[in-house]
Amino acid sequence: MLPAGSVIGILGGGQLGRMLACAAAKLGFDVHVYCPETAPPAARVAARHVCAGYEDAVALRNFAKACDIVTVEFENVPAAAAEAVAASGTPFRPGAKALAVAQDRAEEKAFLESVGIAVADWRRVDTREDLLNGLQAFGGAGLLKTRREGYDGKGQAVIASRADADSAWEDLGARACVLETLVEFDLEISGLVARGLSGECVAWTPPHNMHSEGMLRRSRVPAPVDPQVLGQAQDISVQLAEAMDYVGVLALEFFVMADGQLLANEFAPRVHNSGHWTPEACATGQFENHIRAVAGWPLGRAERFHDVEMINIVGQEALRPPAGFGTDVSLTLYGKGEARAGRKMGHSVRRTGPARSRTA
Amino acid sequence: MLPAGSVIGILGGGQLGRMLACAAAKLGFDVHVYCPETAPPAARVAARHVCAGYEDAVALRNFAKACDIVTVEFENVPAAAAEAVAASGTPFRPGAKALAVAQDRAEEKAFLESVGIAVADWRRVDTREDLLNGLQAFGGAGLLKTRREGYDGKGQAVIASRADADSAWEDLGARACVLETLVEFDLEISGLVARGLSGECVAWTPPHNMHSEGMLRRSRVPAPVDPQVLGQAQDISVQLAEAMDYVGVLALEFFVMADGQLLANEFAPRVHNSGHWTPEACATGQFENHIRAVAGWPLGRAERFHDVEMINIVGQEALRPPAGFGTDVSLTLYGKGEARAGRKMGHSVRRTGPARSRTA
Repeated sequence: MLPAGSVIGILGGGQLGRMLACAAAKLGFDVHVYCPETAPPAARVAARHVCAGYEDAVALRNFAKACDIVTVEFENVPAAAAEAVAASGTPFRPGAKALAVAQDRAEEKAFLESVGIAVADWRRVDTREDLLNGLQAFGGAGLLKTRREGYDGKGQAVIASRADADSAWEDLGARACVLETLVEFDLEISGLVARGLSGECVAWTPPHNMHSEGMLRRSRVPAPVDPQVLGQAQDISVQLAEAMDYVGVLALEFFVMADGQLLANEFAPRVHNSGHWTPEACATGQFENHIRAVAGWPLGRAERFHDVEMINIVGQEALRPPAGFGTDVSLTLYGKGEARAGRKMGHSVRRTGPARSRTA
Repeated sequence: MLPAGSVIGILGGGQLGRMLACAAAKLGFDVHVYCPETAPPAARVAARHVCAGYEDAVALRNFAKACDIVTVEFENVPAAAAEAVAASGTPFRPGAKALAVAQDRAEEKAFLESVGIAVADWRRVDTREDLLNGLQAFGGAGLLKTRREGYDGKGQAVIASRADADSAWEDLGARACVLETLVEFDLEISGLVARGLSGECVAWTPPHNMHSEGMLRRSRVPAPVDPQVLGQAQDISVQLAEAMDYVGVLALEFFVMADGQLLANEFAPRVHNSGHWTPEACATGQFENHIRAVAGWPLGRAERFHDVEMINIVGQEALRPPAGFGTDVSLTLYGKGEARAGRKMGHSVRRTGPARSRTA
């Protein structure tokens, strides 16, 4: 167990880092934040901010040396940065392996399949040829995604027919992609789990996630799905964490098919937007359990006390209080200066009732 | 309403300031901390720390000018410091009046009585003569307290008989005191209320507070008292907040007599140790509602979802995890370096069951 007063380093300075930093402070830790932005949300609740780029191996190494443990708030940390941290001798959790797998959609899907987790049919696409072959296999339609650096719907294109193939290929930069078959799912849910240093896991209730323009807008808990299916989603997420010898919180997104089958979509090796309701609704929230995990502390229970709805506050929505604020709504704002269109500025959590079931 | 992104200044850098700073961050505010200590707990979760003394009017004024609102985490802010902040033009909440009253036990008792709140019989003691006269009136025994600068049992002496009078008087420095009659109470509770800028109030369930060596060690919620008496404690606390045109959270301590009568003991014009369970157990915790109040935001509900027990972690108790950590216990540590004897290092909150009643 990392003693209270130790320093936890976070790569990345956004809202996830900010909420992690507050959770770390609750447990008596100091937080150092590393990111290239000059005034990031997380730095304003941290003991120290190192403002440098992820390619600056010297700065990264010095940063890591001043920390007792280093973790991340986003998965696109360059491999070289992860290596620089590892070279410092300071433990890096969840670690380079999970990041490397999560950064590359082809690696990710291959890994999920290799550990027996079902995903929608997919193909590697390295050339225009590959794309056309893949489309043929999938009946002429599919979802093309860049292998790297996609998030919130960026770096992907729906291909409805072979006629769209060329423009999609060019729009995404004619670079390494994956093609997924278009899946007719009922709804999307996510498995949220924390795995401790000693291997114990806790899983929160899977939320029902609703997206708009590729961005999560709303999560309802519990997802309106057979509790057995929710239990399976928890079990599969735990299975993934164990397969990677993961330490910390991860989120695994699923498509739920009409017959209840679960197809894994992608995972995030970090705390996740679809788990932002956990501090308000559960015995322990995702941010605190991530900190406990990377610090080698025992995890807190994920027991849920309330049914809730989490709504993201995007762009200018941040300029007025959310509906119900002052009654049943808990508000979190991220301290971002400018309320730009499409920018996640905060979220609200509304308690919709006592938990219908403690486990799902 | 102070817009998100505004700066909230806090005078004082201890654990109350630290928890206020995290609550402010949740709502999107930046926090500046002012205190003379070089590495205080609150500064490590704040955007800025001004390290200067409370007698430094220039530093205080500059600090206040950089803030949109200034509040406090302790009541013993010198009057001159409060004036320096007020002179800056930046709103100071709860404000100089409440601080002045709370700093002086004679002023405090006189004020409570003036607004119709019952207190134990007491006398002003400016001289040894006053003390002897007071003891005579109280049957030879009493509790002698310095008018100023007492906390956690410091600055007070129990006088069991007239023979103790001289040594008590000398021990406390032969300075202005109050003498209270010794009260045979059943238990101690506290009224915790928040009052918003527009005058609305919310009251949390009064906890049962257990002290040891003058320091709060344990609060149980709800206090094992007739719910009508708990309601009265809430009402009286609201009455006090209204009488002072108070903005923010205050705590009013009561003795509960065998017949259910309430005698006010003292109040704290700030968030209070006996309310540290509110973030875990209630729709809104005391730290968030204090920030909402001083920022002119609508208050959140104090509705309570759990019965709880809060235990202070003192001195070397901080070196091992509390009993039950990892199951039903939420832990908060304050980030204080040295676990000195008698130093409040953190607290634990144990959920003991669902709330027996939502109001008491």
